[in-house]
Amino acid sequence: MPSIAQPFDNESLPKDKLIAEYERVRAQTMRLTEALSAEDMMLQSMPDASPAKWHLAHTTWFFETFLLQPHLAGYRTYNNAYQYLFNSYYETVGERHPRPQRGLLSRPPLEEVVNYRKHVDDAMKVLLESYSAEIEAAVTIGLHHEMQHQELIQTDIKHALSLNPYALGPDTYAVESSPGSVSTKSPEFMHFKGGLSFIGTDAESSFAYDCEQPRHQVFVPEFSLCGRLVTNAEWLEFMADDGYKRPKLWLSDGWATAQQEGWQAPLYWHREGEQWFTVTGRNRVPLDLNAPVCHISYYEADAFARWCGCRLPTEFEWEYAAQSVECCGNFLEQNQLLPQPVVADNKGLKQMFGDAWEWTQSPFIPYPGFKTPEGALAEYNGKFMANQWVLRGGSCATAEQQIRSTYRNFFYAHQRWQFSSLRLAK
Amino acid sequence: MPSIAQPFDNESLPKDKLIAEYERVRAQTMRLTEALSAEDMMLQSMPDASPAKWHLAHTTWFFETFLLQPHLAGYRTYNNAYQYLFNSYYETVGERHPRPQRGLLSRPPLEEVVNYRKHVDDAMKVLLESYSAEIEAAVTIGLHHEMQHQELIQTDIKHALSLNPYALGPDTYAVESSPGSVSTKSPEFMHFKGGLSFIGTDAESSFAYDCEQPRHQVFVPEFSLCGRLVTNAEWLEFMADDGYKRPKLWLSDGWATAQQEGWQAPLYWHREGEQWFTVTGRNRVPLDLNAPVCHISYYEADAFARWCGCRLPTEFEWEYAAQSVECCGNFLEQNQLLPQPVVADNKGLKQMFGDAWEWTQSPFIPYPGFKTPEGALAEYNGKFMANQWVLRGGSCATAEQQIRSTYRNFFYAHQRWQFSSLRLAK
Amino acid sequence: MPSIAQPFDNESLPKDKLIAEYERVRAQTMRLTEALSAEDMMLQSMPDASPAKWHLAHTTWFFETFLLQPHLAGYRTYNNAYQYLFNSYYETVGERHPRPQRGLLSRPPLEEVVNYRKHVDDAMKVLLESYSAEIEAAVTIGLHHEMQHQELIQTDIKHALSLNPYALGPDTYAVESSPGSVSTKSPEFMHFKGGLSFIGTDAESSFAYDCEQPRHQVFVPEFSLCGRLVTNAEWLEFMADDGYKRPKLWLSDGWATAQQEGWQAPLYWHREGEQWFTVTGRNRVPLDLNAPVCHISYYEADAFARWCGCRLPTEFEWEYAAQSVECCGNFLEQNQLLPQPVVADNKGLKQMFGDAWEWTQSPFIPYPGFKTPEGALAEYNGKFMANQWVLRGGSCATAEQQIRSTYRNFFYAHQRWQFSSLRLAK
Amino acid sequence: MPSIAQPFDNESLPKDKLIAEYERVRAQTMRLTEALSAEDMMLQSMPDASPAKWHLAHTTWFFETFLLQPHLAGYRTYNNAYQYLFNSYYETVGERHPRPQRGLLSRPPLEEVVNYRKHVDDAMKVLLESYSAEIEAAVTIGLHHEMQHQELIQTDIKHALSLNPYALGPDTYAVESSPGSVSTKSPEFMHFKGGLSFIGTDAESSFAYDCEQPRHQVFVPEFSLCGRLVTNAEWLEFMADDGYKRPKLWLSDGWATAQQEGWQAPLYWHREGEQWFTVTGRNRVPLDLNAPVCHISYYEADAFARWCGCRLPTEFEWEYAAQSVECCGNFLEQNQLLPQPVVADNKGLKQMFGDAWEWTQSPFIPYPGFKTPEGALAEYNGKFMANQWVLRGGSCATAEQQIRSTYRNFFYAHQRWQFSSLRLAK
Ligand SMILES: [Fe+3]
Ligand SMILES: [Fe+3]
Ligand SMILES: [Fe+3]
Ligand SMILES: [Fe+3]
Repeated sequence: MPSIAQPFDNESLPKDKLIAEYERVRAQTMRLTEALSAEDMMLQSMPDASPAKWHLAHTTWFFETFLLQPHLAGYRTYNNAYQYLFNSYYETVGERHPRPQRGLLSRPPLEEVVNYRKHVDDAMKVLLESYSAEIEAAVTIGLHHEMQHQELIQTDIKHALSLNPYALGPDTYAVESSPGSVSTKSPEFMHFKGGLSFIGTDAESSFAYDCEQPRHQVFVPEFSLCGRLVTNAEWLEFMADDGYKRPKLWLSDGWATAQQEGWQAPLYWHREGEQWFTVTGRNRVPLDLNAPVCHISYYEADAFARWCGCRLPTEFEWEYAAQSVECCGNFLEQNQLLPQPVVADNKGLKQMFGDAWEWTQSPFIPYPGFKTPEGALAEYNGKFMANQWVLRGGSCATAEQQIRSTYRNFFYAHQRWQFSSLRLAK
Repeated sequence: MPSIAQPFDNESLPKDKLIAEYERVRAQTMRLTEALSAEDMMLQSMPDASPAKWHLAHTTWFFETFLLQPHLAGYRTYNNAYQYLFNSYYETVGERHPRPQRGLLSRPPLEEVVNYRKHVDDAMKVLLESYSAEIEAAVTIGLHHEMQHQELIQTDIKHALSLNPYALGPDTYAVESSPGSVSTKSPEFMHFKGGLSFIGTDAESSFAYDCEQPRHQVFVPEFSLCGRLVTNAEWLEFMADDGYKRPKLWLSDGWATAQQEGWQAPLYWHREGEQWFTVTGRNRVPLDLNAPVCHISYYEADAFARWCGCRLPTEFEWEYAAQSVECCGNFLEQNQLLPQPVVADNKGLKQMFGDAWEWTQSPFIPYPGFKTPEGALAEYNGKFMANQWVLRGGSCATAEQQIRSTYRNFFYAHQRWQFSSLRLAK
Repeated sequence: MPSIAQPFDNESLPKDKLIAEYERVRAQTMRLTEALSAEDMMLQSMPDASPAKWHLAHTTWFFETFLLQPHLAGYRTYNNAYQYLFNSYYETVGERHPRPQRGLLSRPPLEEVVNYRKHVDDAMKVLLESYSAEIEAAVTIGLHHEMQHQELIQTDIKHALSLNPYALGPDTYAVESSPGSVSTKSPEFMHFKGGLSFIGTDAESSFAYDCEQPRHQVFVPEFSLCGRLVTNAEWLEFMADDGYKRPKLWLSDGWATAQQEGWQAPLYWHREGEQWFTVTGRNRVPLDLNAPVCHISYYEADAFARWCGCRLPTEFEWEYAAQSVECCGNFLEQNQLLPQPVVADNKGLKQMFGDAWEWTQSPFIPYPGFKTPEGALAEYNGKFMANQWVLRGGSCATAEQQIRSTYRNFFYAHQRWQFSSLRLAK
Repeated sequence: MPSIAQPFDNESLPKDKLIAEYERVRAQTMRLTEALSAEDMMLQSMPDASPAKWHLAHTTWFFETFLLQPHLAGYRTYNNAYQYLFNSYYETVGERHPRPQRGLLSRPPLEEVVNYRKHVDDAMKVLLESYSAEIEAAVTIGLHHEMQHQELIQTDIKHALSLNPYALGPDTYAVESSPGSVSTKSPEFMHFKGGLSFIGTDAESSFAYDCEQPRHQVFVPEFSLCGRLVTNAEWLEFMADDGYKRPKLWLSDGWATAQQEGWQAPLYWHREGEQWFTVTGRNRVPLDLNAPVCHISYYEADAFARWCGCRLPTEFEWEYAAQSVECCGNFLEQNQLLPQPVVADNKGLKQMFGDAWEWTQSPFIPYPGFKTPEGALAEYNGKFMANQWVLRGGSCATAEQQIRSTYRNFFYAHQRWQFSSLRLAK
């Protein structure tokens, strides 16, 4: 979140454009829950994840709290209890329901939460009529926040349904392993000269979060980056070469975690006879060998890179390289549910945006000159700047509008339920 | 479960009576969930408790597994996956879904579980037409099993809803504290001569579980039993006298548990100003001072008894005394939701049946000559005969048909979510 | 501890006899630590166990606190800090050092603790000169208390040393498996008529703890008891028959514990090739197949009994049978370190006293009419009367003077580091 | 550890100098344990810490394993079991004793470990006679490794003794609060221009660990650094201003840790009346208000910096600034046991070396071009490069020879038992 947040693109958004954007993003959230029942939307399978119903309410609470209450005269909150139930972690806003107990909120029912969304959307339409730069800035944050939760809705329900042996049936179509895809050859690396480079943004001409700021100089030594993500076929080689059994390939914390959790393959993988399967949020599918590996921890990514004599890129290397690539790819809008194989020839940097988040070897810490924004939204990203690692590039569950080359996502090294993958560097 | 299980009463039940009983019990289960949404019926707030939807399915699975599959020719199971999902702990029957993850079963949806009940009920009606003693015995067990789960449906949902600050509103009626009730006077004790007594049953003339058998002799020394349960008013005196703060009143394990859990009052109690409140499964109500204390652990019951110079009765004393009392009281059918004050004069043994389970000082162990029943139902009670304590008499959430003077319920000393209370002995 | 404690035997002990007894018991404690270094005597390998140095100091603290401070005019405590450090669990006496941190007491050094013992012994000699019945009663308790800790010194150090792969070398003598012993034949059972029997003692003519009192009537149905303990050879048969892998043989809590702890054999057993070994507190020895199995939990004992179609005896059956047997056997004084095979013919009840404690199926609860003794010693046994099981008969680590047919020892069902075994009943 | 390790200083060390250095370092280790008994040297108060006896043996095992076994013909190991017992974490060398059980090694006794040291020292003297560059490189690592353990001997025993209420008496001298010290004024900051700077070393002319290499360029934006460490007086202001009670001052992980651990002050602080005390490894002393705060976690350091509108320096800023400062200060050799106040005027960068380690805001990750050394010592630092933070500058428990401006120490953000402090940056 910038000190002065910026509109979606360079031309200042007119009021109508902002309204359209608001409607588009909010509708997209609802679309993601279309196939889910009220019971599905109760599920919380671990403290890291939240029920889909909670996501619906919390993103709405954000607009109510940061837009309607301060800015819309005469606005009446839908239900005062929601302030407590649907606050995520904003200490300034007050007490909140304990995170691990979000799955116990059978009440309010889904129906009422849907009404809550409608109530807030109606009020927002009134507010948006009285357009101002300040309102646009805050709405923009609200929409980006909602897009972040769109991805979580998908990853959280996928995790929960994967634990119910009854929930995810086999894919109904006969699946040939990604017919159109090019079989992956040995990876090609692209060389970058590096040097003193600008990293981050000042968010003057478009939206960016606090943690992407300010734009500053970093000295990036020369490096090489693989043209694509690591594939499932390559991951199976790692497994066949006892990658999960050799402590010397692993970070010390990683080895301890892998032993304790009994990791033998990426999350969601299971084997029947000779065939490996994984799951989407809808069904069980055969593993596509040419597709990027997905749902791995930082520890696994790091061990794989060491195994093949490479390393993970830094977030600066990644951003430096990404500056030359157009921001398009396999995003939420493509509705593919899983990362996809590279389709054409193997030239150039592929899969930088979309498909799967790429673990970098950079811990999530503040940029030089980082300033916590003022006000209640001050809690946005700064307080998470410890013990987490930066991931870059977005995934097949990320809204396209959400991503840019400066975007920094972050998770703990042991987490695997996000669409996380790796790209090799040297 | 007896070696030869017996019908509901002395006169052998005719086929029609059994069918009527089947319908009555099954319908009562559904009635208990009438006020609950599909979302409510997903809730599992701790591993000890199960979702209401799971109870509906599991009790149905019992009839499918132990009646329809072995006895109804041509019966087709509703869904083979249910064998895995809705088995509770019968190792003989096969693998089962992990208990702490029952709350993750958003699928099958409630609707389908209701259909499952219908499917099994229809098949049961066919089976019951071909009446036999063997079938009657097994059906009788199934119905008693279902009645046990009726109580759990109530205690489990109460626990889950109590953790949602939004779920249980204040009682809508102004509540005067149990207007008709007699204010409790200092407790009167009734003296019993004791001697060599028969305990338990051989289940020849009516149904009883394996653990109530066989009928055998126990020498019961003379003793006195309080005419009623301990009241909320008396419990407040214990609290006012630092009952929760004096280690010498407590068992060593009890004190450790109380410290770790931060116990300061019975489960569900909370205070606003000078007024104490508790909850039912439907709303928040002022504490009725004349009503029996409820939702206490064995440790608390034991500490209270020591505090007032008494002790808990043994299960043999309780059963000896109960033989002279008619088995009626404040049961599930009265729909009171909480134990009620004694209404009339203070003479005689009151509240022996219904209102609240009474902790005894007897661990749950086998009677001399105890035999595990043969077959799959062998796992019924025997394997739980360690580290638990016997409770007697049933509660306001117990079906009346379920209870008799020989009935032994059992829970761990730290558990509080059942309707558990105490009666003093000397 | 009796309301009026009694001397060691029927003839009232003269002063000289008490002094001799005091010296004998105190010296025996020191003898048990002769082979241990100051470093060994620091070891605390789990919260259940205590360092030998702590046992030396705590038993001394007992005499200082309950004899010297109240009864010896002008007595000066050795060091006031010891009141805090060496109190075990007497809440009345004041705060105390946390049990799991007893192993952190490098100071006071062993040397100082030995001086402490001398200081208190010297003062006790003065006190004992002014003999009185009250003093004799309290000293008697102190000596019995010290004998209990003599056993714990042995079991605790054995546990700690067993975890140091370097500490326990192989036995230096070539060991033929108990050469003089009779190979165990299939067990013979002895039949007992039972009936209304007296259990416990009123401690009028000799010492007994509070929990053995009062003497009272129990109806004991007829029963049979095996003439000897279960042997290691028999336990190997249980293992060979998948005893540790079949949940239906186990109590529910027992199965959960066995899985969690990975139990596959009794504690301390390990295998090299075809040969099984166990340990003493001094070295590693081949398993004597004819000797009683030892270091098993209640859960294992119960599973074994179920496996062979028997059960564990109740503590009343055991005591009833033991009344006809002389109280002698393989005790601490024999210095055998492990239970020994039955040596002669297989007739009669063997191994009732000594060799190994026998798990009974009786939970440790108060006898009817149990009274907590008054004063500080009130905390002796009563507060442990929950969740533990009675063991009877003493072991090869028990002082002979400590045991009698009414003696009730108690441990949790999962504990294995005591010399615990089983005798079959039917 | 460098690919080619380097001698202690620029002039190549002659053989005699290396021998003298070996003797000096080894003797210093023993000197640190002079005041400790064999019992003290058994203590392990948490898995993070190790017994002093273990440190003595492990540092010796290092020379035996990496010098004597490969390089001294005919060398016979002192005891083969030590390979298992005293390996710390070198997977290549083989299995090892579990870290949390190091406190259970009463055997071998201290005496034998001292003999082990002598045995190895004697053999080392023989080896050192046949001087070679390769041997010098490995010995140099061994001595630096031993110096690291010298610090741990002090921090680990301090932690263990602090948990024994009897171990650390009051200081025997009347203590005036650091009489010679200048009362701390409001901190003065020094400005640095920054720019493209060289960080790390190639270890060509003197020893450095693998993680300090290679020397590489980093762009350091301009910054200011406080001339001294934060003092105890300033920390008390933070506490008085509810620094431990305001979540907005803390990182999210830090706040969770502080709540769970109940942090209200730095480790070892306790209060009597109005006076605060801390401990050394020898006794309890009044808090010197002008001395640097010590024994704080990264989370506390970070919260304090945020509280006063500053931040922690990066490790690059620290190293950049340190290049202009002479490497001398309050080290182990000064025998002060605690960090000391700045003594003279407040000008210039004080306390950069010695006194207390300074938390930086830099996670411990590899420098660009980092190479894991070959051979068994490959495991030196690389596998710890996750989830830990860099500390710089050494402490009052660090050997002077160990430190240089490029030295990177690292600990987890929650750890407090090291001599850790902070210096403010802007
Ligand atoms: Fe959010
Ligand atoms: Fe059931
Ligand atoms: Fe004791
Ligand atoms: Fe080391």
